[in-house]
Amino acid sequence: MSEDKELLPGTCEPLEAEPNDEQPELAHPADAAEHIEGLDIEDQVTFIKQLPLEDAAESIAEMDARDQALLMRRLSLGLGARIIEQMFPDDATDLLNNLDEDLRRTLLSKLKAEDRAELKTLLTFDPDTAGGVMNTEVVVLDQDLTVDQAIAKMRGEVEDKEIPYYAYLVNEDKVLVGVISLRDLLVARRGTCLKELIKSQNLIFVTYNEDKEEVARLISHYNFLALPVVDFGRRLLGVVTVDDVIDIIHEEASEDMQAMVGAGLDETADSPWLYSVRKRLPWLVLNVANSAVSAWVVHLFEGNIAQMAILAVLMPIVANQAGNTGQQALAIMIRQLATERFDRKRSWMAVLREAKIGLLSGVLIATLVFLVVMAVSGIPILAMVMALALGLDMLLGALAGASIPLVLRALGRDPAQASSIFLTTITDSMGFFLLLGLAQLILL
Amino acid sequence: MSEDKELLPGTCEPLEAEPNDEQPELAHPADAAEHIEGLDIEDQVTFIKQLPLEDAAESIAEMDARDQALLMRRLSLGLGARIIEQMFPDDATDLLNNLDEDLRRTLLSKLKAEDRAELKTLLTFDPDTAGGVMNTEVVVLDQDLTVDQAIAKMRGEVEDKEIPYYAYLVNEDKVLVGVISLRDLLVARRGTCLKELIKSQNLIFVTYNEDKEEVARLISHYNFLALPVVDFGRRLLGVVTVDDVIDIIHEEASEDMQAMVGAGLDETADSPWLYSVRKRLPWLVLNVANSAVSAWVVHLFEGNIAQMAILAVLMPIVANQAGNTGQQALAIMIRQLATERFDRKRSWMAVLREAKIGLLSGVLIATLVFLVVMAVSGIPILAMVMALALGLDMLLGALAGASIPLVLRALGRDPAQASSIFLTTITDSMGFFLLLGLAQLILL
Repeated sequence: MSEDKELLPGTCEPLEAEPNDEQPELAHPADAAEHIEGLDIEDQVTFIKQLPLEDAAESIAEMDARDQALLMRRLSLGLGARIIEQMFPDDATDLLNNLDEDLRRTLLSKLKAEDRAELKTLLTFDPDTAGGVMNTEVVVLDQDLTVDQAIAKMRGEVEDKEIPYYAYLVNEDKVLVGVISLRDLLVARRGTCLKELIKSQNLIFVTYNEDKEEVARLISHYNFLALPVVDFGRRLLGVVTVDDVIDIIHEEASEDMQAMVGAGLDETADSPWLYSVRKRLPWLVLNVANSAVSAWVVHLFEGNIAQMAILAVLMPIVANQAGNTGQQALAIMIRQLATERFDRKRSWMAVLREAKIGLLSGVLIATLVFLVVMAVSGIPILAMVMALALGLDMLLGALAGASIPLVLRALGRDPAQASSIFLTTITDSMGFFLLLGLAQLILL
Repeated sequence: MSEDKELLPGTCEPLEAEPNDEQPELAHPADAAEHIEGLDIEDQVTFIKQLPLEDAAESIAEMDARDQALLMRRLSLGLGARIIEQMFPDDATDLLNNLDEDLRRTLLSKLKAEDRAELKTLLTFDPDTAGGVMNTEVVVLDQDLTVDQAIAKMRGEVEDKEIPYYAYLVNEDKVLVGVISLRDLLVARRGTCLKELIKSQNLIFVTYNEDKEEVARLISHYNFLALPVVDFGRRLLGVVTVDDVIDIIHEEASEDMQAMVGAGLDETADSPWLYSVRKRLPWLVLNVANSAVSAWVVHLFEGNIAQMAILAVLMPIVANQAGNTGQQALAIMIRQLATERFDRKRSWMAVLREAKIGLLSGVLIATLVFLVVMAVSGIPILAMVMALALGLDMLLGALAGASIPLVLRALGRDPAQASSIFLTTITDSMGFFLLLGLAQLILL
């Protein structure tokens, strides 16, 4: 750019190197939150107290649920309430949901009446639904405005809103009729009426009771930045934004992996260890009960083992191999159910597909194991029994791995919940039954 | 709104119920893509041929990689090239990356010179890096523009760009100096100079060689809608947008769960089944090798089992229980590594935490199992051996589950890869060794 001082009005003057006397900007709230989480609780309080209210609110909103709750318990009620008033309503709702009943009630009573009313409404929504994760501060425009009127209105309103890249159009009954992006506004002819712009629009929205994971699926599917949430009369209540959806997707992936093996859905490497013990122990007890089933199967054939101890040597190979085959099917199915809707027909196709995979892998691995057992033991009939048990159990493992998530879903449970534990029970007990039973029939 | 026909200029006329003679809008491209994927390949070609080029491009961009490649192989080269020219460059690059070398080269040669040059550059970036997932069609503004000049410029440019909610400011050397959102532009005073707006901005960007999962982590961390990608001279190359990040996060979660058990990273319930067999078989063979280790341990104690077959009955309980404990630790660690950076100190803290969990759960479950074995067998010393082996193996399982992902990462491998298989080897073989070894020392 020119260094010339003679500039036309409305163009940029070259900047002088002037001393910057503004307050230096706080690091991004997400970084501030990480910084705060690393401090002792006393220092956290001191740090928050010296921040401007708005920065304090933004930083606390970014903290982990557990740290958030600990900190809020130590702040004075007055300061806590002021901070909550500064938050976006969805963040404030999350925060309040993380607090003890008592503290929540007291803090609510200290809020300005208007904020209190709004948050009380938001707290009535189930936190796992669209209503529970939505943001209520949206730009709403009358569909009868023109583009330039709309731009002027947005200019006035946008400052306090978290989601300024879409505006929502409603009719005189407050019914949602369309969505318009800033981009569309910018490129539209100035005099155009908004309702002309949305004429052929294929409007996509959810009701407030929709599962939040379905909301995440819709936003990922359509590549939206936000999705409107309505009541049963299609009146606009708020929007779910893409950044919340990212959190939902992360959460869901962690839940799936952790549910599969019976860890707590919300455990992280920072959870207090006794909390983790409490969450995991019931599933470990279930696992004892389940492996008792396998042990009982082995017990049925105790005599065979006493006669031929090599059977005990081969037992772990059969069980393990079928278990692994099943877990591969399990992993594919759980992720599939997490990312797509899956109707009855596709479910069956997927089970069939895993059965084919299990069958072919079973034949191949059984052949390999046959050769190895043959080479090591020199007993062809033992190698044959082993290979047969292994191949059949792998097929069973594949079928079980593909079916368990579908069965759990059909029962209205989380498709991942303890699935790995159920799978192991099947592959272990059937593996032992096949190996020891076939040995009894053929060998002994 | 009023039904009055006398309107002020620039306000909205009430709409007449006029016949809508525009072409009815195609369903959203994501839905069109799903529709296309459900058709036979011949019908897919027919359907694409009758769509306007732009709609065809958008729909194909939304298809699965595999279906995309099958379809492109059946379209005429001319049509294929026209469709690619209509795509956003990042989608076109993904598409080309999915094709055979030959078809890719031929299609590239049919493109307009300008598009060809751009795509060839994009194809040089590793698809797993920021450069490989970035979009190059961004709005770039000179930092010396004023707000109203910027708005005018954006109005002219925004139509073809996928990401119109941020504009990127560069200096005279094309070096990235700031980011500005449409929202900031809308609320700023008209005459303000852009560089005034970004003065204290904490600019966050990545270089093109940054891992795409790190890009996803940054965008989730800061709740950005897009992140700029620069070269080593901080010149702007493009941006990664939040919708691509959602895909990366989904992909990463699937990869983790599938890698853990040795399924293919990119397998879905729609992958051809033989492809899945090919991906999984090597890990199943590794698993045979691993369970041969456990079998060998059992073999060492074959004599003990022949003497006391009840040991074979108890074997699966020990192995299974420690395996499940280890998998719980594994799941927590894999998800932790997926969502956060994790330094050496926190890694050790996490291992220590899992050790404590394993120890306490081990003591509790061992006590339970002691009582049950005591009740069933009536042999206190057997129950004691069993409980001891179980408790120790559970502690080992927890340590192994927490450490394996860290070790894999330190070796430069995917922290999830086959981790469940390695874990089972440890818990099985150590479980058998402890049970049968302690039995030999104490019982026999």
